[in-house]
Amino acid sequence: MNKPLILITNDDGDAAPGINILTKLMLQIGDVVVMAPDGARSGQSNAITVTHPVRFRKLEEHEGLIRYACTGTPTDCVKLALNDVLARKPDLLVSGINHGSNAAINIIYSGTMGAVLEGCDNGIPSIGFSICDHSPNADFSNFEKFITQITLQTLNNGLPDGTCLNVNAPVGEIKGIRVSRQCKGNWTKEFAKRTDPHGKAYYWLTGYFNNHEPQAQDTDEWALANGYISVVPSKIDLTDYEQLSFVRKWNF
Amino acid sequence: MNKPLILITNDDGDAAPGINILTKLMLQIGDVVVMAPDGARSGQSNAITVTHPVRFRKLEEHEGLIRYACTGTPTDCVKLALNDVLARKPDLLVSGINHGSNAAINIIYSGTMGAVLEGCDNGIPSIGFSICDHSPNADFSNFEKFITQITLQTLNNGLPDGTCLNVNAPVGEIKGIRVSRQCKGNWTKEFAKRTDPHGKAYYWLTGYFNNHEPQAQDTDEWALANGYISVVPSKIDLTDYEQLSFVRKWNF
Repeated sequence: MNKPLILITNDDGDAAPGINILTKLMLQIGDVVVMAPDGARSGQSNAITVTHPVRFRKLEEHEGLIRYACTGTPTDCVKLALNDVLARKPDLLVSGINHGSNAAINIIYSGTMGAVLEGCDNGIPSIGFSICDHSPNADFSNFEKFITQITLQTLNNGLPDGTCLNVNAPVGEIKGIRVSRQCKGNWTKEFAKRTDPHGKAYYWLTGYFNNHEPQAQDTDEWALANGYISVVPSKIDLTDYEQLSFVRKWNF
Repeated sequence: MNKPLILITNDDGDAAPGINILTKLMLQIGDVVVMAPDGARSGQSNAITVTHPVRFRKLEEHEGLIRYACTGTPTDCVKLALNDVLARKPDLLVSGINHGSNAAINIIYSGTMGAVLEGCDNGIPSIGFSICDHSPNADFSNFEKFITQITLQTLNNGLPDGTCLNVNAPVGEIKGIRVSRQCKGNWTKEFAKRTDPHGKAYYWLTGYFNNHEPQAQDTDEWALANGYISVVPSKIDLTDYEQLSFVRKWNF
C-alpha cells in the first residue's frame, strides 16, 4: 500500500513547537505536506481572507516532506493546499498541536479547528490536536503516543462524511482517552480595559471560561479536568434537527 | 411590558445599507443598541482579536437608539456590547442584513453568523439575516416584512438554549418561509492566481459553491433557489452525537 498523504496545518504558525512535533509524528505514518500560516493566527476560527490576496512560499523540501508558509488564515491554508498545491486529495488532515485548549465552546473560535472543519467539508478525514497549555514551552511528550494512536485509528476506521475529531489533552500525566461531547459554557469578564497615553480607552480580550455543567462526566471539560484526553466527534452541519419541528410550528 | 432591548451587529460594517435597514425595522419593535464593526469584516467567522486591543466609539444616540462602531470582528462586537456597554442582557440579538448568502456551509465562514453563534452561547435569542445578493445596492424591500415577522415570532416563542436562527432570503419575489436544514456542499476552484509586477504569484479567494444534494427539497439551498426564505435552526454544540458510539468502538 502507498503511504498516506497527510496535510498538516495549525493556527500558531509554521515555527510553533506544536506543529513541528506533529510533523515529526506524521512522518512516521505517511508523506507529509505542511501548509501553515507564517505567524500566529490564534482565534481566527473559520475566517477566510477576502479583502486582499494571499501568498505562500516553500520553506523546505525533503523526501516525504514539503513545508510551506502562507500569509493567510488556517482555513486559507487548507483551501490553498487543496486547490493549488497538492497533486491529489490528502488521505488525512491534522491540525495543531495547538498551544491551548480547544475544548467546549472554544471550538468555534479556534483557527486550529477552523482548518479541521474546512478539511472535513472537503471530504477529508480531519483531526485537530490541542493541549491545555498556552505556553510556547508546552510539554507534548505525554501526548505524542496518543496522537499516533488516534491518527492510525482514524486512517484505519475512516470518519463518516461531515464528521471530524476535536482532540484535546490535559497537561501532565494522561490516564487514557475519553470519547466525549462538547461541554456547555461561555466566556465571561472578557475584557481588560486600559487607557492609552492620550486618555482613550482600549480593550484587551481575556476572560474566564464559565462551565455550565461542571457535574456532567461525559463532557470534554470533565475528561480534561480528570486527566484524560477528550475526543469529540464534531459536525460541520450545524442544523439543530431536534428543533426543526419546534420552529415549523411558528406562525409563518 | 417594557420594550425589548435589541442588540444589532453585522459583518459588512456600520455604514452598510443592510444594517441600517435592520436598525430601522428593529426600532419598530424595541430599544436598539448597535455595535458594528467600523468597516467590512466579511468572512471573519467567529474570529476574535487576541494579538492587539480593540476600541469602540459612539456614533449617535437618540431616544431608543445608540449606535457604536468597533475596531474588532463581529464576535468582538458582541462580546464588547455584553461585557462593557449594555446595562443588561439584551432580549434579542440580530445580525445583518448581510449582503450575500450565509446558507449551507457559508454559515461557518460568516462573520454575520459568527456574531449570532456568540449571542446564542451567551443565552440570547439570536438571529442572522442575509440576502443572496452581494451588491451594496441589494434590494431588501421584499424581505422587510418577513424580518419583522420572524423577529416577533422569536420574541414570542423564544429559542431553546443553544439554538439560533440562520435566515436567508432570495432576491426578487418571495413566496414564503421554509424551515430548512443546512445543505451539504463545499466550495471548489477557489483561487484566482495573479502575478505581481515583480513576477511573484498571489491568490484571490473566489470559487463556486458545489451543492452535494441539489435534489433534496428540505435544504436551505432548495428554499432559496425556489423563491423561499430559508430559516435554519442552528446549534452551537457541534458534537456529532450519532457518531459517539462509532468512535467509542475504536481501539483506545
